[in-house]
Amino acid sequence: MNLKIAVLPGDGIGPEVTLQAKKALYAIGVVYDHEFIFEDALIGAVGIDKTGKPLPEQTLNLCLNTDAVLFGAIGDPKYDNNPSAKVRPEQGLLKLRKELGLFANIRPIKPYKSLLDSSPLKREIIEGADFIIFRELTGGIYFGDKKLNDAGTIASDLCEYSEEEITRITHLAFKTAQNRRKKVTMVDKANVLETSRLWRKVVKKVSENYPDVVLDFLFVDNAAMQIILNPKQFDVILTENLFGDILSDEASVITGSIGLLASASLGNKNALFEPIHGSYPQVKGKNIANPIASILSAAMLLEHFGLHKEAKKVYEAVEKAIEYNVVTIDLKADSKFGTNEVGDFISNVI
Amino acid sequence: MNLKIAVLPGDGIGPEVTLQAKKALYAIGVVYDHEFIFEDALIGAVGIDKTGKPLPEQTLNLCLNTDAVLFGAIGDPKYDNNPSAKVRPEQGLLKLRKELGLFANIRPIKPYKSLLDSSPLKREIIEGADFIIFRELTGGIYFGDKKLNDAGTIASDLCEYSEEEITRITHLAFKTAQNRRKKVTMVDKANVLETSRLWRKVVKKVSENYPDVVLDFLFVDNAAMQIILNPKQFDVILTENLFGDILSDEASVITGSIGLLASASLGNKNALFEPIHGSYPQVKGKNIANPIASILSAAMLLEHFGLHKEAKKVYEAVEKAIEYNVVTIDLKADSKFGTNEVGDFISNVI
Ligand SMILES: CC(C)[C@H](C(=O)O)[C@@H](O)C(=O)O
Ligand SMILES: CC(C)[C@H](C(=O)O)[C@@H](O)C(=O)O
Repeated sequence: MNLKIAVLPGDGIGPEVTLQAKKALYAIGVVYDHEFIFEDALIGAVGIDKTGKPLPEQTLNLCLNTDAVLFGAIGDPKYDNNPSAKVRPEQGLLKLRKELGLFANIRPIKPYKSLLDSSPLKREIIEGADFIIFRELTGGIYFGDKKLNDAGTIASDLCEYSEEEITRITHLAFKTAQNRRKKVTMVDKANVLETSRLWRKVVKKVSENYPDVVLDFLFVDNAAMQIILNPKQFDVILTENLFGDILSDEASVITGSIGLLASASLGNKNALFEPIHGSYPQVKGKNIANPIASILSAAMLLEHFGLHKEAKKVYEAVEKAIEYNVVTIDLKADSKFGTNEVGDFISNVI
Repeated sequence: MNLKIAVLPGDGIGPEVTLQAKKALYAIGVVYDHEFIFEDALIGAVGIDKTGKPLPEQTLNLCLNTDAVLFGAIGDPKYDNNPSAKVRPEQGLLKLRKELGLFANIRPIKPYKSLLDSSPLKREIIEGADFIIFRELTGGIYFGDKKLNDAGTIASDLCEYSEEEITRITHLAFKTAQNRRKKVTMVDKANVLETSRLWRKVVKKVSENYPDVVLDFLFVDNAAMQIILNPKQFDVILTENLFGDILSDEASVITGSIGLLASASLGNKNALFEPIHGSYPQVKGKNIANPIASILSAAMLLEHFGLHKEAKKVYEAVEKAIEYNVVTIDLKADSKFGTNEVGDFISNVI
């Protein structure tokens, strides 16, 4: 297979972890005789620094005209602590998601056997947990009107959803559930929010097409608790943009490190793969960031193109690294291995 | 002291747990020679059933003219699963919060020594954790404009905040931090939301009045993770309405049961005390709901009126119940004690 892949390393630890994912894909290409053509482009704070824009046109055009996007991370503290900055790195990622129509962000959560003891949660709570979060990615409060009055004393954000936006991701979630344990848990705040009530109505309607899948509902406050109390109850969690952002970061604790969690963002035409950890600027360039989430995003990319054998190979190589303790310090405090060494080990095993 | 207390038992397990809190207050009154006059009133689904309104005028008037409100719980599944219901129980609580101007909801999180092993989190993670969540309670997306187009296909909720709303709760949070470990962590999503950026700006400004308190910031997704990874890092968490709702329910896992967590909602004139668990309709009337959160809310009420000795007495009685395993089944699966027995034990110890 020939695949043209746009690589957007972005900010903070983005570049160093994305490099390891490229190495893994390169190794897969050699072993299975595929040609992956990588083209790098700017986004985020580095995009602003070099072009004034968090998503330069050239980057967007590249992404629109490649088979997939491999994404690093975005964000820089110099913007976070400046509430009046007009241009921010995150706008680049949000615009990219919107322009590529990446409406579904898919985040699988499953602890590794050999890491069961590195979670802050007790082993008996997490052993056997295995669920996927479907987070809506191009709607909701992220994209609604934002206002600040002239005096700078009143601000607002609009959360908006349409039936169509809810319908398309709901189908994806139910289809996935059909191939799993056949349960969808919709998370909302329907006792307070109008948008949540629309979600409930639409999801119920769509669910009628999937009589073999059980649908249940949780309020987001309760869900935030249940994910920790009893994560095994979940199969597929379906939720809106902001709730998905919060709950998926929270759920990362089940696996022991957010440095292990990959995600796929899918649209009708395009697809983007990224680790769920952010730019983590504190450790940038120190060769201690965990590259596994990025490497697993590459594996999700392979799966997306039907390269299941190849994806499996990557998963196995990652498991071997974990099993042999070739991991970064987030997983083993006294580890001698850094970002590069873990990446090398994994691509060598491939 | 003479106190007139409005009691709003509400829905689900509200009535049975509130009864135990009344018993505890009654016992305190006898021992310390205070007169607590209780007056019950309707709210929530029972309010709708009996008067058509989730907050009958009579209830609101009573609350406006008493010293404090002791609140049970609100919510009923018959409304949750009916997205087009026009009247909902929760409107009663939201309206009450608004009308009484209860802008600050205060939720202390601290595990009991003898319950350290009932949390899904490992002992070493939670031992020594001790923080308070300050949740803004009368603004944000809970109270902004809600819209649904005529076709019922597009819905929206507006999240709005003003400098004034942010300022008043920020002062409370910083004053509390001054009497504790002198750290405030503001939780927001300032990399995406305009309201969060206003929060950051205002909180920074207010913080200048409290040079002895350290202020730091966390994005809400990261905060949802940090609360589980390392809860000991927190002293006072300050956040907006919806984030506070989610994070405080999540944080309840630290204590082993949401049935242990009380809250105080304060305004300039009024005060309301409620357990943070909801109406939990599944166990209503079964005499298995944990009354401790409600009893601890009563203790917070005592503290609010400067009755520190009395509050301490309640805390000690609760600790004794826990120590002697006189607890409900959420804390000890094979317990023979029910809601009533735990309530009796605690008021007898007082
Ligand atoms: C960087 C930020 C805008 C982003 C989000 O909130 O969507 C990140 O937290 C994520 O989850 O991908
Ligand atoms: C019942 C509901 C409206 C309420 C809220 O979300 O505020 C509850 O969850 C709470 O936390 O007090």
